[in-house]
Order: sequence, then C-alpha cells, then structure tokens
Amino acid sequence: MSFTAQDSSYMARAIQLAPRGWFTTRTNPRVGCVLVKDNIIIGEGWHEKPGFAHAEINALNHAGESAKGATAYVTLEPCAHHGKTGPCAEALVEAGVARVVAAMLDPNPLVAGKGMKILEKAGIKTEYGLMQAQAETLNPGFIKRMTKGLPRVIAKVGMSLDGRTAMAIGESQWITGASARRDVQRLRAESGAIITGSGTVVIDNPSMNVREQAFTANPHFTQPVRVIIDSQNIVEPDAKIFSHEGHCWLVSGHLSEKGYPANVEQKTVALLPGKDEVSHQKVDLKALLIMLAEAGINDVLIEAGSGLVGAFVAQELVDELVVYMAPKLMGSAARPMFQLPLETMQQNIELTLNDIRQIGNDLRLNYYFKKA
Amino acid sequence: MSFTAQDSSYMARAIQLAPRGWFTTRTNPRVGCVLVKDNIIIGEGWHEKPGFAHAEINALNHAGESAKGATAYVTLEPCAHHGKTGPCAEALVEAGVARVVAAMLDPNPLVAGKGMKILEKAGIKTEYGLMQAQAETLNPGFIKRMTKGLPRVIAKVGMSLDGRTAMAIGESQWITGASARRDVQRLRAESGAIITGSGTVVIDNPSMNVREQAFTANPHFTQPVRVIIDSQNIVEPDAKIFSHEGHCWLVSGHLSEKGYPANVEQKTVALLPGKDEVSHQKVDLKALLIMLAEAGINDVLIEAGSGLVGAFVAQELVDELVVYMAPKLMGSAARPMFQLPLETMQQNIELTLNDIRQIGNDLRLNYYFKKA
Repeated sequence: MSFTAQDSSYMARAIQLAPRGWFTTRTNPRVGCVLVKDNIIIGEGWHEKPGFAHAEINALNHAGESAKGATAYVTLEPCAHHGKTGPCAEALVEAGVARVVAAMLDPNPLVAGKGMKILEKAGIKTEYGLMQAQAETLNPGFIKRMTKGLPRVIAKVGMSLDGRTAMAIGESQWITGASARRDVQRLRAESGAIITGSGTVVIDNPSMNVREQAFTANPHFTQPVRVIIDSQNIVEPDAKIFSHEGHCWLVSGHLSEKGYPANVEQKTVALLPGKDEVSHQKVDLKALLIMLAEAGINDVLIEAGSGLVGAFVAQELVDELVVYMAPKLMGSAARPMFQLPLETMQQNIELTLNDIRQIGNDLRLNYYFKKA
Repeated sequence: MSFTAQDSSYMARAIQLAPRGWFTTRTNPRVGCVLVKDNIIIGEGWHEKPGFAHAEINALNHAGESAKGATAYVTLEPCAHHGKTGPCAEALVEAGVARVVAAMLDPNPLVAGKGMKILEKAGIKTEYGLMQAQAETLNPGFIKRMTKGLPRVIAKVGMSLDGRTAMAIGESQWITGASARRDVQRLRAESGAIITGSGTVVIDNPSMNVREQAFTANPHFTQPVRVIIDSQNIVEPDAKIFSHEGHCWLVSGHLSEKGYPANVEQKTVALLPGKDEVSHQKVDLKALLIMLAEAGINDVLIEAGSGLVGAFVAQELVDELVVYMAPKLMGSAARPMFQLPLETMQQNIELTLNDIRQIGNDLRLNYYFKKA
C-alpha cells in the first residue's frame, strides 16, 4: 500500500468531517467519508447519531449515480454487519465504487477486516492505514470499549493550587471560576455517561446535566446518562439530578424501595468487601464500568468527591484527568484531590501531561495515566 | 515632560544593559546607563557589584571627553550620597552632561529626588518616568526593601499534581526532574539569601548553594547567604550546608555553644509564644526578614518544609511562589504543600498567576500573592 499526497488530502477532509457528530454519535463511532472521482470531491458524509445513516451512506446519497468508479476515503473501516442501517460495505459495492481507503480497521478484533473482505470479494481495491493516528483521536472511547470492554474514563477535578477540592466542613462552591465551569459543560456533552456519588448528590444537590445552549440546541443532542453510585441507598427521589431531561442510573448493591421518577433506572452491581461502612469503594467500580460498556457507553466522565474518584484512581480505572486549578490556597486542613493512601515514592502514580491552557483565571490541565 | 521615540529606544537600551549585573549586584540595585550625543551612543555602562563603579560612572568612563553636552539615560535616579564610590549625580555634573533622563526616582523615600536636585542645581535638564514599569522589574527586591524595610520573598515549592511535598515518612527525593532542579540553581543565584529550616538540614542534609557553572564561573559572583532557622539548636556543626563557600546565618532564640565553622554567624531573633514545641513558628519570622533587610538583602528564597514555608505564608510574608509541579500523584497521606490551617473558603488565600512554563516533564508556575 502506498498513498499519494492527494490520498492524504482527501483523508484529511474525511477526518475533518467526522467531528461534526462529536456530541451526538454517542454509542457509535465518529466517522467521516469523502467520495472522489477524477480528482473532484463528489460526495461527503459523516455519522450524526445512532439509528441515522452512516458516513458512507450519506456520502453515497450525496454523490448519487456518479459514485460509480469513485474512490471512497473513510476514517474507519466500513461496517459489515446488519445493524439499524444495513452494512456500509455492501452499499459501497452496490454503488459501484472502485477503491476504498480506510484510515483504520474496525478496532473490534471480532469484526476487524470483515468490511474490507466484502469489498475485496466484489473486486474493489481496498487499502487502510492512511492517517491512522489522526483517525484514532476521533474515537478514543469507542476504541477502548471495542478493545478492552471498558469505556474511556475521564476524571474531572476542580481544585486549588495546593490540591484541595473542598474545605474540611464540605464547603466547595465555587473553587474555580465561571469560565471553567462552562468548560465542564463541553466535557459533559462529549460523554455518554457522568458518574457521581451519593455524597455529592446529597450534599451539593447538583444537576449534572448539559445546559449550555451550544450543545442542547442541536436537535440530535441527547443528555449523557447520569450515574449515581448509592451503595447505601440514601439518595431521595426528589434529588435535583433526577429532575432534568435524560436517563439516570441509580447504582447500588440492592434495589431501593423508594419510588423514583420514570427516568431513573435502578442497577444492582456486586459489592466488594469493604473496610469502611461509608466508603463508596463498596460498589465494584470495574463491574459498573463493564456494565456501562455493555450499554454502549464509550466515554465516561467522573464528577465526584475525593473518596469516590480516589477509588477509581486507586483501582487504575481512570484514563485521563482534566484538572481545573484555581489560583488560590485552601490550606492543609481541606480535603485532598483524591483519597489515595500511598506510603512510599515508589508507589507514586506517574502521569503524562497532554495539554495545558488558561481558562479565565484557572488553569486547565489534561493528564494521561501512564499504563504499565 | 514628554519623551520622543528616540528617548524610548535609548532607555530600552539602558534597561537591556542593567541585567548584566543580574546575579552580582546583590545588595545594590541593577542599573543601566546610556550616554547619547548627536543621536549616537557614546557610552554604555551597568553596575556589576557592590564596591565597583555605578552604571553612570562606567558609561562616563566609556564616553570620555565626549560626554560633554550629552544626554544620559539611566534606569534609576543617579545617587546623591557618598557611598563606596562617590555620588553619580556629581560625576554627571563634572562631566558636563546636558540632560539626564531617569526611568524612575530612587525608591527610597528618604533619598528620592536628591540626585535630580543636584543635577538641576547645576543647570542640567532632568526628566524621569520614562519606561518606569519596565525599570521597576529590574529591582523588585531592592524596591521592596527601600519602601517596606523588608526583602522580597519567594517561596520555592517542588510538589506533585496533588499538592504534596513529601511522603508521610519524610521521603521527598526527588519529586521533580533534573531540569527543574537545575532551574532552582538560577533562583538561588539571583537571591541574596536562602532560608531553610533545621528539619530540612537534619533530615535531607542539603548543600543549598549555587553549583551551576553558568553562575559560579563569573568572578564577581558571591554565594547567597544560607540562613538556617534552628530555634531548638539541633543543627550540628558538620552539616553539609556549612561546608561550602559562602556565609551562613544560624538563627535561633539563643546562642548555641556548639563550635561552628568560621563562615557561620549565629543570630538571635525574638521567639514568639508558640503553641507547639517543635514548630518553626517559634522564631519571629518577620523580625528575621527585617534583620535580613537591614543587612542589605533584597531577595530572599525560602526552600524549606511545609511547616516553615506555611508559617511564612500564614503570616503574609511571602510575595511570590515558584512551584515546580511534577506529573504524578503522591496520595492523600503525603505531606501538604503548606501547613496552613484554614476553615472556610472565605479564608482562602488568593493568588495571581504570573507565568507558566514546562521544564522537563514538570510545570513551573509563578504566582503572586494578592495584596489587600
């Protein structure tokens, strides 16, 4: 396989189209497609939302009859399965496309290569691997779910320079400025689920929804699932988090008999033998993440207190940190960034800085956890 | 007073010359001077070191006879006093300079304007205030000492993302990388004194000196004074911090009878009534800073444990933070950034971010304390 500069420029266009579904593809991957004939783009498409046409179908519809003999540039291998919309590989065959270039194969090892095989059998020239690294950045959550059976997990932390997330008495509003809080709306909007704990719900009574017009005005936008870990069944049905549009999961070891609103689904997860009766570590957090992956959730955002987030971190379930760091000192009596007992420097958890920017008066720091 | 673009460009040159003495003027201010006649620079000078010629004298020597009728651009008002080198104002008069432009008046309210008056009396045209803000950045420590009777204090902190400076058992080497530690050499080199505590000296046995060739190779360079706060007189004479070239202050409430090396000067400072027998807060830290200012120290760097630095912060004696933040988590059992007990968010200490850069894998953050 060798690619020309023109191949790269058309694939770059396909990679540019895919993020148009950034906040709406949810359980599906973000995909872009460009159809080219005689060095002219004759069709463009992207995937918008589950149940809607895939990127390839949109591009074929755009091109119409002229798709015959064209080259298709697509950011992800065309699907081979009969889902809600029929396999794209077959649609490309039917349209008479002559060549298909995919940036990457399907990350699902059980499916990878199947779409390409359908195309090849029909005599279509197939290639893949063009701008693969760029294409992968479109779908970190989808790729992780397909390869590991777990969603990609981002923990969001609002803290002071001295790494504190609340005063000892619980006071924590507001550590960061309005601009940082607005940025969190974007983090939420690109997540399939937001996890929080019963402590946060009971004490702060947050909404944990997406309110920013920039996202909600899109008719295809759906609220991320709000997931409340409530191992002691203490969250009341009138909590504000249930009162907004969108689905909620109430997660515990045992069903509660409280009557919750219709948008609340109770989920039981195994409880781990806990040392601490009030610790959130009682719910098997990995089992919960697997359950979310099985429900098609690619990207999870954790917005919770230092105990719950610390448990996710200690169990190595977090992929990324997004830290909003306010220019202030909250002092050594205040609550830590994470409840995370480590004894020696050997046990320190190494991170990799990915991005830093100033948001209002706060810094926004993005770190990856180093994987062993 | 009105200045031309040419005035600004010559003053900019003077401001560019002053930092050539950045690491060596120590108790004196950093000053640059440019002599201009017929739109040609005929003399340049800067101050290098106490006891050496001032910037104006160097520029006059450079210009020689041609100084007659020239304009002198100087970053600080020429001195009027007979110190180690004779008043610069008189030297400018003698040289027959026609006009003197100073970026700023002497910050010492007892002296401000006296140099200008000598010049005016001799019929020289004097102006000041050109690029004053830029000139002030040359001498933040000198200006603070002259106006407040206290040195400028920078607290240096090496910590993890979660704001921890040592493990609970005391382990702290090395939190940050080699590049950050090398950057600390520059911080030390531009300081007149480095303050640390007996705990740090006893546990880590640091050198706390400037070792980087870039600074020590300069024949005019002198080591900052190493100041050890030792209220319990526990530091032994063989501590490594005493073994290097340079003066040390050993600060306590009462003289020790241990025999210290010749470069160690014992200083007694008032003890404050302390709640805690082992707390470093026992020494009156403000009294110590006043003592340092009286000894001519413009810039103090604090490199100490969270208890001692926390005490300086709590007493509002710190002007700036330089934080080296490593991409790691040390956990919630580790020692805090500062021992600083605050109860409500109302009591939080507000900072202003001045500068951020990446040094190796660490971030270097520079914050100012907001003054009431």
